[in-house]
Amino acid sequence: MTVAVCPGSFDPVTLGHLDVVRRARAMFDEVVVGVAHNASKQALLPAEIRVELARAALSGVEGVRVELVAGLLTDFCEEVGAVAVVKGLRGGADYDHELPMALMNRHLTGVETVFVVGDPALAHIASSLVKDVARHGGPIADLVPDGVEAVVREALGTAPAYERR
Amino acid sequence: MTVAVCPGSFDPVTLGHLDVVRRARAMFDEVVVGVAHNASKQALLPAEIRVELARAALSGVEGVRVELVAGLLTDFCEEVGAVAVVKGLRGGADYDHELPMALMNRHLTGVETVFVVGDPALAHIASSLVKDVARHGGPIADLVPDGVEAVVREALGTAPAYERR
Amino acid sequence: MTVAVCPGSFDPVTLGHLDVVRRARAMFDEVVVGVAHNASKQALLPAEIRVELARAALSGVEGVRVELVAGLLTDFCEEVGAVAVVKGLRGGADYDHELPMALMNRHLTGVETVFVVGDPALAHIASSLVKDVARHGGPIADLVPDGVEAVVREALGTAPAYERR
Amino acid sequence: MTVAVCPGSFDPVTLGHLDVVRRARAMFDEVVVGVAHNASKQALLPAEIRVELARAALSGVEGVRVELVAGLLTDFCEEVGAVAVVKGLRGGADYDHELPMALMNRHLTGVETVFVVGDPALAHIASSLVKDVARHGGPIADLVPDGVEAVVREALGTAPAYERR
Amino acid sequence: MTVAVCPGSFDPVTLGHLDVVRRARAMFDEVVVGVAHNASKQALLPAEIRVELARAALSGVEGVRVELVAGLLTDFCEEVGAVAVVKGLRGGADYDHELPMALMNRHLTGVETVFVVGDPALAHIASSLVKDVARHGGPIADLVPDGVEAVVREALGTAPAYERR
Amino acid sequence: MTVAVCPGSFDPVTLGHLDVVRRARAMFDEVVVGVAHNASKQALLPAEIRVELARAALSGVEGVRVELVAGLLTDFCEEVGAVAVVKGLRGGADYDHELPMALMNRHLTGVETVFVVGDPALAHIASSLVKDVARHGGPIADLVPDGVEAVVREALGTAPAYERR
Repeated sequence: MTVAVCPGSFDPVTLGHLDVVRRARAMFDEVVVGVAHNASKQALLPAEIRVELARAALSGVEGVRVELVAGLLTDFCEEVGAVAVVKGLRGGADYDHELPMALMNRHLTGVETVFVVGDPALAHIASSLVKDVARHGGPIADLVPDGVEAVVREALGTAPAYERR
Repeated sequence: MTVAVCPGSFDPVTLGHLDVVRRARAMFDEVVVGVAHNASKQALLPAEIRVELARAALSGVEGVRVELVAGLLTDFCEEVGAVAVVKGLRGGADYDHELPMALMNRHLTGVETVFVVGDPALAHIASSLVKDVARHGGPIADLVPDGVEAVVREALGTAPAYERR
Repeated sequence: MTVAVCPGSFDPVTLGHLDVVRRARAMFDEVVVGVAHNASKQALLPAEIRVELARAALSGVEGVRVELVAGLLTDFCEEVGAVAVVKGLRGGADYDHELPMALMNRHLTGVETVFVVGDPALAHIASSLVKDVARHGGPIADLVPDGVEAVVREALGTAPAYERR
Repeated sequence: MTVAVCPGSFDPVTLGHLDVVRRARAMFDEVVVGVAHNASKQALLPAEIRVELARAALSGVEGVRVELVAGLLTDFCEEVGAVAVVKGLRGGADYDHELPMALMNRHLTGVETVFVVGDPALAHIASSLVKDVARHGGPIADLVPDGVEAVVREALGTAPAYERR
Repeated sequence: MTVAVCPGSFDPVTLGHLDVVRRARAMFDEVVVGVAHNASKQALLPAEIRVELARAALSGVEGVRVELVAGLLTDFCEEVGAVAVVKGLRGGADYDHELPMALMNRHLTGVETVFVVGDPALAHIASSLVKDVARHGGPIADLVPDGVEAVVREALGTAPAYERR
Repeated sequence: MTVAVCPGSFDPVTLGHLDVVRRARAMFDEVVVGVAHNASKQALLPAEIRVELARAALSGVEGVRVELVAGLLTDFCEEVGAVAVVKGLRGGADYDHELPMALMNRHLTGVETVFVVGDPALAHIASSLVKDVARHGGPIADLVPDGVEAVVREALGTAPAYERR
């Protein structure tokens, strides 16, 4: 049985994440979504909430589970027995950014990183942009799974624009 | 009549910005320079000062005006009736960075983003580099419009190098 | 009135081309599609056929016409009074490829080049790939405008796969 | 059981190809190396020889076989029951080049393309460079599997430099 | 005699840095490693410690010395009489990031920037990744020169994983 | 004494080439311009003419000479005692294209490749574009050294546009 890990901050989980996870699942027998604790980067949502939202969004997908990655990603991969880390790519510059990390992870434990091509129709959905839109009161309901919008808005202290206008 | 928006932080406005705005103006009947309020990013200069400096620099250019963008860029584009967002590009990696934002803006309101090619002779002029040079007392008078250098130096608390030496 | 030129080989015209032309038309009052005669590059279809197919595909679009570019693109732009050349981009590497051409055209006559973002859902449609698919008997009817498939197949001497099987 | 296809021209097979095939094999139960017949591109070696050399080089690797791809890659993937096409990447520009092909293949039959990171110590080994070196009488024995050098030199009509000097 | 400057934060110095410095030294008669004081960027280690570690790592290399860069890099280059700034590159996106800085430095004093190709076998070693690995208790002894690991761990307040487990 | 090689096809030599050669000369004691014989690529001008034009253009530059590269570039570098190959870069995608060649050359003989930043004001001048412009009767006198235009036009069989009109 082949296991793959889909790592990320998931701050918050988006429809783009779900797309990548489903593609990974089509190629590997089991996919573990690894939510980075992210000590060194400022996250909007606490790690536990990020795990919870991702779990809710993926609860119906067979062969997929969501876990918190507290330490090194490579240690996590060893724990769950993953043969590969799977990531989506946003263009060539993104690859150049991901390459040193992929090589470092291979150096540490030999785990491979593979890059999948996300659905181009979702290419505008990045967590950072989703938060930017929400921060200014824009609509994000069609960018994230059900239930995520309310949590993001509460964390940001913003009401949706249609309520304000 | 076609209207385009040139968005940015303009922290501070540079000769590179003026170059892009003029190229936009050559293609569209009216250009509105949109200065982002930038709540989530640390700016050196307050938004009002950034607007003021951009206005002074562009006061002589017919068909161009400068406004503060308080909320979503796409809401702003709708308010001013813009058919396009115009941006300058700094190489292919910059395009990969801009693409998700362009697609998000199209997703939100249908507004298009077009990329123009800046004057290569100004390729070294980015606001962040201008501030770096000024921070270390280097000359920036030939990188920014008249009057900008003094405001930047005051904000940074730096005297120009030729005074210090 | 602003005029823009959409240049290319159009060997053959695809749905991706139509998408870029329509976006250009939304920003400029008139769009002239310029089909390069392409003396130095081997084309599958003769220039006259490429013009004819593009004309048929765009016959219903107001403010758009199709012409053959016999000489320099910049001479053509001057003849039709264009303020801009409009191109679609396929990622950052494509921009790096297009940049010297855009700068050369500006050097020659001052004409600007602007890059628009095509519909990501059409990102797989390049003329060269369309021909590759057709060459091996694959389906291309949903990649090109009506009437193009038959002409391409005749030029390639290939029957569609569903006939052969 | 998961099957993946590693496509290419293999003109000739190199140590870089073997590296990518082995990484693919570590993630999928079976790997089929698909040698493109390449009607539209000038190859140095006939397709049958390219298949033969790749077969000899991979004869000892369990779960890997080599086949000729006569038609569309996607038809081939369906025939062998592959869930994924696996490719190595040479930097971000390479990704931008591969992306439309990956999307076209997904469009045609739904097959996914995944990109793996080759061994950086082999980053200089591309088939085209191997042929360039051999064409000028340079050493290629440490760039290709056993037996390949002699075939390439015969096809090129070049003796190795150490014989000539 | 030709002098070159290798600038950077060196937070901390890595085996990747040593590789670039040695390649620079093979081309220039003298190499001055310039450790940026970095007022505007948060560094893990104080500048004096970063200088000290780089000095210790390069103490045996003839023709190389390490200095603190307190102000503008271009002023520093003038002080040491450098004809060139030498940097390693991590892919095309990195070049696009470095280009405006190179052009700004040329604009300020005429100093050239040249890019060398680091050893691909060290492509995973970036200071930021080294700190990430150490922060989570991973092994970094084979990524940095002797003596660096202990200083980094003390600054991070982390014990190596093999002690903790 | 340090020697560097500037390789290329120089088909024909352009003002962009002269710019890169002069920058190389500012960093190395001697620069040898290596004109590739180019057996495998179709050149407009014979190798001897390309050498002759480059020699004429650089005749006044001290410490620079022009030679034909008949075989491997690395053999040539060894013959002239070069410590480095120097190339200009046109954006990040160009770097990704050059990298495997640089690594191959290092693999063969250990010679380093360094990339310099050309004058952005010359970024539109590539030999291929110069030939395209000339082929269509456009002006190239300000893109190439004195005497080159006439040779290119004779080879192309084109008269300049101002004569034809």
